[in-house]
Amino acid sequence: MEDEFAFISKITPEETYQKELVRGIGDDAAVYSGADHMEQVVCVDTMVEGVHFRRDTLSPYQIGKKGLAINVSDLAAMGAIPTYYLVSIAIPSSWTEEELTQLYQGMNDLAKTYQMDLVGGDTVSTNDVLVLTVTAIGKVERGRARYRDQAKPGDLIFLTGYAGTSAAGLDLLFEKGFTGPFSREEQILVKSHQEPTPHIAEGRILSTLNKRISLNDVSDGVASEANEIAEASQARLIIERDKLPIHDVMYTYPPEKQLDYALFGGEDFILIGTLPKEDVKEVEAEFLSQGLMLQVIGFVEEGEPGVSLLEENQRNKVEKNGYNHFKKRG
Amino acid sequence: MEDEFAFISKITPEETYQKELVRGIGDDAAVYSGADHMEQVVCVDTMVEGVHFRRDTLSPYQIGKKGLAINVSDLAAMGAIPTYYLVSIAIPSSWTEEELTQLYQGMNDLAKTYQMDLVGGDTVSTNDVLVLTVTAIGKVERGRARYRDQAKPGDLIFLTGYAGTSAAGLDLLFEKGFTGPFSREEQILVKSHQEPTPHIAEGRILSTLNKRISLNDVSDGVASEANEIAEASQARLIIERDKLPIHDVMYTYPPEKQLDYALFGGEDFILIGTLPKEDVKEVEAEFLSQGLMLQVIGFVEEGEPGVSLLEENQRNKVEKNGYNHFKKRG
Repeated sequence: MEDEFAFISKITPEETYQKELVRGIGDDAAVYSGADHMEQVVCVDTMVEGVHFRRDTLSPYQIGKKGLAINVSDLAAMGAIPTYYLVSIAIPSSWTEEELTQLYQGMNDLAKTYQMDLVGGDTVSTNDVLVLTVTAIGKVERGRARYRDQAKPGDLIFLTGYAGTSAAGLDLLFEKGFTGPFSREEQILVKSHQEPTPHIAEGRILSTLNKRISLNDVSDGVASEANEIAEASQARLIIERDKLPIHDVMYTYPPEKQLDYALFGGEDFILIGTLPKEDVKEVEAEFLSQGLMLQVIGFVEEGEPGVSLLEENQRNKVEKNGYNHFKKRG
Repeated sequence: MEDEFAFISKITPEETYQKELVRGIGDDAAVYSGADHMEQVVCVDTMVEGVHFRRDTLSPYQIGKKGLAINVSDLAAMGAIPTYYLVSIAIPSSWTEEELTQLYQGMNDLAKTYQMDLVGGDTVSTNDVLVLTVTAIGKVERGRARYRDQAKPGDLIFLTGYAGTSAAGLDLLFEKGFTGPFSREEQILVKSHQEPTPHIAEGRILSTLNKRISLNDVSDGVASEANEIAEASQARLIIERDKLPIHDVMYTYPPEKQLDYALFGGEDFILIGTLPKEDVKEVEAEFLSQGLMLQVIGFVEEGEPGVSLLEENQRNKVEKNGYNHFKKRG
């Protein structure tokens, strides 16, 4: 860590949850315990200012929170328990100490939810835009990590939350600016874009129940993530249009717009997956008992790997270009 | 991974060493085995184009190799065995596909040395300079990770290689340009800057012998790293000027310049540490039997935490500003 950023060591969290022995904080590497009965999960994501986030749609606090949320969502998609994270950040002179403090506070607040410890990182200067790279580490019981390649004909497809609210919120921010004004309904959409909640509890149900489940998180849109499952599983996924869960506050939108957001809007950080038809009732019951949402949106059938939308008895191919499509609109 | 960088999945290594079960490659997170008797080590470093590397001193291949080497060196400083790495990279349009292929080839070649598997990452575009963030994962037998806080009065200080060759090589590159011409002697210095070798074997000896050892890698210069050990251990480290290992090819340099490089030149990626006087012979014997270098350069004494240089019976305080000093010269 370079001296000019020495203050960052002061704004990083005081709490260490001591779930397990962690040492080496202050050294360049952190040491933590492994265990025979657990597998380790690791993921990394980079957010570039001007490409993945803009300061006119997210506050510094929200940029930090979201930078960690993206990675926690990747852990959720494996069914893992979040444990640690590392933050590597390239900082330009256009960011003030106060803004950086808020950015770290955003990460810290989300980390508290999951009792994740910040165990290391790298802080460097850059002459250009801010680049935030978060590495997240989790653990999952041996053999219980969920992957994308388990879908089989006859399975059902599910979502663990509403699709498209984040993209709708982003469009509202583009349209009205960071400060709005937004109606109470619009605030829900804006908040879902700015401070998404990763679905860790949902992922944990899906790993601990130990069914044959494919799982993915919706970072690039339902269409894109469903296609990833289809490719990994070599199966055909059929999404039924009238089953897609659209949030109440989007009911006033034209139907085509609702569908566009639901299929191609990214960054919802809900989970999408498949499971055998005979297991649906048991999984639904567990979700219901924990007050969590599970919505069946379609089924898996034989055929060329890919995704189709079923609407008025017509099957139309849904390409993987959710995110690109979204970018063009943005 | 965005579609425009799809070629990166093709240039990543074919080998998977299968040291342990690794799954989830292709998913956004990788899953690997933990074990009761091993601790996990993780570290992350970011290199920014124009700040941490320049394309007129390093080739794309060398940038990749060095980006991984920095992290492997952090693992060496803990006494760990490298296992996996993840690469997060923000790519501007100024980099060609061919150059990126070379960058990944540089990482791949170094990874082969340690049988490290590339298990994940994130590839994004940026409008500015290239930012390379590598996360490295290693393992070490439970209780055998080495830290910086073990130095005690009476201990001796050691280095595992020559100090200052990387900085001398960088100055030659600044002076003569990327293509030189360099004498055969100068080529040794240039190569030590461009393709440093992390000291994994040395770190492994120092962890498996299980002595009371402080350990750090020399990324920011001997002065800076010695000060880190002094702070962490609350001890005073005395470096004896005439014991500093200066490489033969630097003997023609003025003595003051040799000292400047040796104390304040960064990126040598050798190890610096302390160990009890009574253990030195045993450790030296093990290094010698493996054909590795271990040079005692001073001792630890009571006193205010910090570092002094002992020269002609004078003790002069050595500040931590190795790297900053180096930057000013550069």
